[in-house]
Amino acid sequence: MSAADAAGTTADAETVRVGLGARSYDVLVGRGLLETAGAAIAPVLARPQTVVVTDETVWAAQGPRLAAGLAAADIAFETIVLPPGEATKSFAQLERLVAALLERGVERADAIVAFGGGVVGDLAGFASAILRRGCRFVQIPTTLLAQVDSAVGGKTGINTALGKNLVGAFHQPALVLADVDALDTLDPRELRAGYAEVLKYGALGDAAFFAWLEENAAAVLAGDAAARIYAVRRSVAMKAAIVAKDEREAGKRALLNLGHTFGHALEAAYGYDGRLLHGEAVAAGMAFAAGFSA
Amino acid sequence: MSAADAAGTTADAETVRVGLGARSYDVLVGRGLLETAGAAIAPVLARPQTVVVTDETVWAAQGPRLAAGLAAADIAFETIVLPPGEATKSFAQLERLVAALLERGVERADAIVAFGGGVVGDLAGFASAILRRGCRFVQIPTTLLAQVDSAVGGKTGINTALGKNLVGAFHQPALVLADVDALDTLDPRELRAGYAEVLKYGALGDAAFFAWLEENAAAVLAGDAAARIYAVRRSVAMKAAIVAKDEREAGKRALLNLGHTFGHALEAAYGYDGRLLHGEAVAAGMAFAAGFSA
Repeated sequence: MSAADAAGTTADAETVRVGLGARSYDVLVGRGLLETAGAAIAPVLARPQTVVVTDETVWAAQGPRLAAGLAAADIAFETIVLPPGEATKSFAQLERLVAALLERGVERADAIVAFGGGVVGDLAGFASAILRRGCRFVQIPTTLLAQVDSAVGGKTGINTALGKNLVGAFHQPALVLADVDALDTLDPRELRAGYAEVLKYGALGDAAFFAWLEENAAAVLAGDAAARIYAVRRSVAMKAAIVAKDEREAGKRALLNLGHTFGHALEAAYGYDGRLLHGEAVAAGMAFAAGFSA
Repeated sequence: MSAADAAGTTADAETVRVGLGARSYDVLVGRGLLETAGAAIAPVLARPQTVVVTDETVWAAQGPRLAAGLAAADIAFETIVLPPGEATKSFAQLERLVAALLERGVERADAIVAFGGGVVGDLAGFASAILRRGCRFVQIPTTLLAQVDSAVGGKTGINTALGKNLVGAFHQPALVLADVDALDTLDPRELRAGYAEVLKYGALGDAAFFAWLEENAAAVLAGDAAARIYAVRRSVAMKAAIVAKDEREAGKRALLNLGHTFGHALEAAYGYDGRLLHGEAVAAGMAFAAGFSA
């Protein structure tokens, strides 16, 4: 997509507000958001520079679009490119990332850009939470899973030998840009795994959305941008409403873990080596959970 | 000191409230607080068990008193004993400590006890902040430096190759027990280094307290319990007032860093190997800062 096309499509962007008092922020859902990312991020930055944390796969597939978007707003940036995969959510990678951010001179008033799927968002978000006891950050999720779930709500963290996400922080992003065009280069298997998380929102009580998802699954998976925007926007709105009521998961937010207890056990058994994707584990976990409660 | 003596002296304990809304907590300053620690901590615990994080020196010198205090209130506990010294405030020790806490089954509603000087408090406090995205913790500072400064206010963290305290969290304790009897076994050099931090509070504008500190330095250093309680309580009250106004150091709290910019540079140059204590570095730093501004 050219920058001109992108500029034309940003009119499609819809905004979901996550209402958390002083920590409130917008989630923009639409097309062409990478090409206009610089203008969107500029108000969040204390100075026109940032560090983009990403992984090799995402940077190769979508990096040029984001680079152009930042350059268009005269925002200087450096990149930190991590290895892809769940194994990156480790103490070792956290230590390396924090050191790399410090070496690049990141200050407390700066904002770090997390550009990738859930692994990049969780790790970069956690690094932002602890760097100088808390820097700002922007989520630019590039997978369906991250767009509808992990990039929204401020849960960040890493895995340990004893389980997933056992170490981390609640640290809200300052802005989330969910560009559905980024899904065009996503592995179809990742796309289906992400769709399981979307179905979770339908299963959590919105019968009309669930029916829509059943009807439009093929369109979403095949690349229909309007269908993707609708699915992501509705999911994000549901998540935002729950997070606004229970930011730190004292009660209702635990609903969002539907399928995750069994799912995490499955992932641990597989050793996070990529044979089982998170969304696949959650889908299997939801089936287990349904069987368990029946 | 016997438990009976201790029970008699707890009447001397004075309470300073750190007012931070839902995160408010008490700092108890007095004698015999270790022997009665169990009763003081019990209301903070979701169940009658805890994990005590400490270092070899502190546990050898003061551990039996705390163990008796926890046993007196039927609180079961395990210990995690770290190597003493500033080098313990590292990513490697953080990872090890978090794993050890998870192995001991610490849950989000549990409270961890940090029992030691600033290194133990900063590391255990930071581990509490990130374990399961935030557990509660209790500070039981055993050095003068920790009692008047690092154990109060919620600054936790570790050092990196690029500098001190560059990674961490603002995470308030649920309770602080500052037992001046614990200072009896402190290395005199550590005591003098801590006194430099006390003088900082006098230098920050309280002329009457500064004059008192000049008059009573010998009594505090020699072990006069009443003088120690007064010095610690006044220092904690000043810190509490500043922290209540500026928890995350957006403004006035930076005053508390008087002498720390130069001090940290000195410590970094010495490599945190114990040749230069933090309080000594701060004292030298205050002198540098005074010279620099003159």
